[in-house]
Amino acid sequence: MPYFDYNATTPLRVSARKRWLAAQDEDWYNPSSPYGRSARVHELLEGCRARLAQLLGCAPELLVFNSGATEGNYSLFEYLQSTLSRECRVGISAVEHPSVYAAAHALFGERCCTFKVNQSGVIDVEAFEEALDRDAFGLVSVMAANNETGVLQPWPQLASICRAKGVPFHVDAAQWLGKARMGPIGTVDFVTGCAHKFGGPKGVGFLKIGTNYTGYRAAVGGAQEHAHRAGTENYPGIAAMMAALEACLESVEAECSRLQICRNAFEEQIVQRIQGVNTIGADVGRLANTSLLIMPAHLNTRWVLQLEKRGFEVSTGSACATGKEGPSHVLTAMGLSPEEARRAVRVSGGWNTTNDDWRALAAAMIVVWERLKREERSNQVIDI
Amino acid sequence: MPYFDYNATTPLRVSARKRWLAAQDEDWYNPSSPYGRSARVHELLEGCRARLAQLLGCAPELLVFNSGATEGNYSLFEYLQSTLSRECRVGISAVEHPSVYAAAHALFGERCCTFKVNQSGVIDVEAFEEALDRDAFGLVSVMAANNETGVLQPWPQLASICRAKGVPFHVDAAQWLGKARMGPIGTVDFVTGCAHKFGGPKGVGFLKIGTNYTGYRAAVGGAQEHAHRAGTENYPGIAAMMAALEACLESVEAECSRLQICRNAFEEQIVQRIQGVNTIGADVGRLANTSLLIMPAHLNTRWVLQLEKRGFEVSTGSACATGKEGPSHVLTAMGLSPEEARRAVRVSGGWNTTNDDWRALAAAMIVVWERLKREERSNQVIDI
Repeated sequence: MPYFDYNATTPLRVSARKRWLAAQDEDWYNPSSPYGRSARVHELLEGCRARLAQLLGCAPELLVFNSGATEGNYSLFEYLQSTLSRECRVGISAVEHPSVYAAAHALFGERCCTFKVNQSGVIDVEAFEEALDRDAFGLVSVMAANNETGVLQPWPQLASICRAKGVPFHVDAAQWLGKARMGPIGTVDFVTGCAHKFGGPKGVGFLKIGTNYTGYRAAVGGAQEHAHRAGTENYPGIAAMMAALEACLESVEAECSRLQICRNAFEEQIVQRIQGVNTIGADVGRLANTSLLIMPAHLNTRWVLQLEKRGFEVSTGSACATGKEGPSHVLTAMGLSPEEARRAVRVSGGWNTTNDDWRALAAAMIVVWERLKREERSNQVIDI
Repeated sequence: MPYFDYNATTPLRVSARKRWLAAQDEDWYNPSSPYGRSARVHELLEGCRARLAQLLGCAPELLVFNSGATEGNYSLFEYLQSTLSRECRVGISAVEHPSVYAAAHALFGERCCTFKVNQSGVIDVEAFEEALDRDAFGLVSVMAANNETGVLQPWPQLASICRAKGVPFHVDAAQWLGKARMGPIGTVDFVTGCAHKFGGPKGVGFLKIGTNYTGYRAAVGGAQEHAHRAGTENYPGIAAMMAALEACLESVEAECSRLQICRNAFEEQIVQRIQGVNTIGADVGRLANTSLLIMPAHLNTRWVLQLEKRGFEVSTGSACATGKEGPSHVLTAMGLSPEEARRAVRVSGGWNTTNDDWRALAAAMIVVWERLKREERSNQVIDI
């Protein structure tokens, strides 16, 4: 069954699975215990940290391995809440992941300020600069790539602006890592990453912290993670995360090109055959694997169900927002009506989705479209 | 190489490994996604919650799966810090794990009060009751079994006292679960558990919360874990944790008997042949797998090194306290001098340590003792 929901989670990459099993067999000791095989695990763990640091372009001791992006984001906002001056505001883009916007709002309340995005979902840089001039900010948090639309934010530009104004900058890179050509993202003050979005196991991630923020603590207790996060280190998970990231990055150029060609051909087919479909973010930089389509009619849940019956797993948007009331805050921030947002179908591929899968998905969507139209005309719901 | 450090961490149990791999192959989907295979993972996840609830004796919706005991303990103290009245104190035993005492001290400062233990490491129940009568407590936290000594605390009795006085009670059961016959620990308000202490994977654990504390949040964002902890659920890890716990509990009676016989015979040998050794907690209830020995001479680091050279991995105490200055707070709370505490050797076995391993360890310790005595007499250090 072709899986088109890589932005929700991914299958485990073969190399990650192998590395996890090898670690469970040979290197499951507690890195803090006082004998040789534990010292070896400690060394391997620091090796993972050094390799990740090299990939991101930062010092290894600024990397804190943790349980995933939500922990990374929440613990960062918690830390800043307890250290920032009461006059400082924090700013987030209007399209952040629930783990950023909920944390920012829960912990900073009215001190949380939202930066607008344009119709394509890209942050309005001019308004952003103006906001930074107007108020004192203790943190700005903007994601690298949006989980619903795949739209890229100009984080290198925003980072420069923040640096010039002395404002700490956070990039939630959970959806970007492993899916785009690597940039020097580790030069940004804070970066969030998450293994299961790029073929690593669930329950593993990292937060890169800035040199001036060594007081950061995700939890206290043992002195693990250079005293930034207590708790026995999940070395097998961390090793598997690194294997997955390295596997992604090894072929990232080729894979991005392949996915972009497939995705664009898919969208071309859809636009040609389904009149009135709106391909979100098609005019701006996007992740090569993602297509967010506003269908011309029918609730997205009907599309998802019909496509699943035909063997395709797609989604209605963010899995983390499932069960929440109301339409996607990402799409309404981009100026779409709630009604339009409820017609959004998210398609996100990955290394296991073949070129044929993309073609077959386009064909299936066209069939579903014809069927839904027929149903509507005859004003009845036909099963299958 | 016989491994005698099960209290630091354990190898992955065969059934846990199998369950993890099966979940990675079949059930790696995001439980919040809108198609059938995701709904299946969601159902399986809730099945794990129901099974754990049955084992603990509580309602499933009071269980929050998380990344381990340190997260469980820290997030609980954080939650209480933000909700308890400023007049309330929190009380912990003098022998708590670093993740409890550091959290309690960091978050409650002078409002944190310590309950004394006796020479055997057991909480002084009379003093405990008096303290509860004297001050208003918002939480009492006492571990089920000590990680360094294996000594059991009378948590059912303490829970009754707390219940009668209307004081919320927390039991850190990280070291107890899977190593002792199960009791109705889920009737206590808060319970912490951790998979890698009983043969599950690292990075997985749970917190049981009380019915009156549904406002508890480990992190905000998605509505996962009945809205108690945001973040994509680590179903493969949770399933493996449950497989490990079930494997432990299936044979817990037989295994406790076996380990107790082995451990007691081991201690008998040691006491007979190494004059002046002190077996901590031998006069009170202890985990069957643990032996904490105060050796009559030589730093514990020397003992650990000599035993490792002979093929045995033992430890100096808590792995979570490694790298911290000063002697064990657990042993000094029990009235041992810092000098005595530095002679502590912790031996903790498990399902893979055979009866022969225990006998061989006793023999090796006796050989090491003779060697260290000879070295001392000749006033020189002999290698191997």
